[in-house]
Amino acid sequence: MKESNSPHEDKRVQRSKNAILAVTYKLLTEAGIAGVSIDEVSRRSGVSKTTIYRHWTSRSALLMDACSKIGSVPVTPDTGTLKGDITELATGLVQQLKSARWAAVLPSIIDAAERDPELAQLHAKLHAGQMVPYFAVVEQAKKRGELAPGTNVSEFVASIVAPFFYRRWFTRQPLDGAFVNGVVDGLLTQLKRK
Amino acid sequence: MKESNSPHEDKRVQRSKNAILAVTYKLLTEAGIAGVSIDEVSRRSGVSKTTIYRHWTSRSALLMDACSKIGSVPVTPDTGTLKGDITELATGLVQQLKSARWAAVLPSIIDAAERDPELAQLHAKLHAGQMVPYFAVVEQAKKRGELAPGTNVSEFVASIVAPFFYRRWFTRQPLDGAFVNGVVDGLLTQLKRK
Repeated sequence: MKESNSPHEDKRVQRSKNAILAVTYKLLTEAGIAGVSIDEVSRRSGVSKTTIYRHWTSRSALLMDACSKIGSVPVTPDTGTLKGDITELATGLVQQLKSARWAAVLPSIIDAAERDPELAQLHAKLHAGQMVPYFAVVEQAKKRGELAPGTNVSEFVASIVAPFFYRRWFTRQPLDGAFVNGVVDGLLTQLKRK
Repeated sequence: MKESNSPHEDKRVQRSKNAILAVTYKLLTEAGIAGVSIDEVSRRSGVSKTTIYRHWTSRSALLMDACSKIGSVPVTPDTGTLKGDITELATGLVQQLKSARWAAVLPSIIDAAERDPELAQLHAKLHAGQMVPYFAVVEQAKKRGELAPGTNVSEFVASIVAPFFYRRWFTRQPLDGAFVNGVVDGLLTQLKRK
């Protein structure tokens, strides 16, 4: 059965899909990815497993759909300078890492992706979507001449975000303004040299 | 009951502890941290739960003891330059991230740590141990005058390792020599400016 998002889509189908996603999301934030089974989603939502599998071909597909509602894509800043833009993005990221539910759920997704290639692919795609504003501000900086045309954008974006993820999940050190400034200043110093 | 590592420790006790750790390690690498329960460890090792709890006060303590055998602490390089030292450490890290079992198991530990403060504390301690060689080479560089005395060592170490962890678990992009060189060169450019 083909899934459609056209305005003609049956309202009842949409309601049922929303109920399934809401339950999946709830299970995900309660117990991580291991807490989400199609059986449990069916039981709690009151929607049959057959219907669930009609909307999503696999547990992984359902999970990623629910996950995509957890992590929000930040707004692309336009402060006029690379320093302003990445400071704004980094400050927002730090806020999210300290408080948002996805920060507590993400490790369970990454863990499951280690054993589920479909989920790994979906997670990488989702993550790429969340990084779009970072790539956008780096491109803007290139246009303004703040960055050399040959700058490796992918490496540069990794250098912006990775230290924050690292502190959140590896060292559990404070994610404060001083750390944001330290990371941003370090990156800008790199650029001035090139 | 007090645990002792003295030479007088009963050989039978040591054998039993080793058997428990070996089973825990095996379960951990097979199914991640969720696959490790004291029940299952007892069943597979043939050691009673009472005895297991005599050696380790909690499942978290047993897990971390087993984990500490998974991730090995790298040898501190001494190439004579900061560039040589961090290139050697980063190259070794990339090899580990691509092939070592702990790279596949670590996300499950980080995930569990989100809901288990004791495990979170133990993981941070274990990770700090693995970072000792990084802090050591940065201190050596300070002594040689390659680094300003005021360099924030903790931020600097985060900038070395975080991009590799990020690629391994978030973007799943290639961890190749070009990426190692890009990260190392970026860091050294930062330092020359300061």
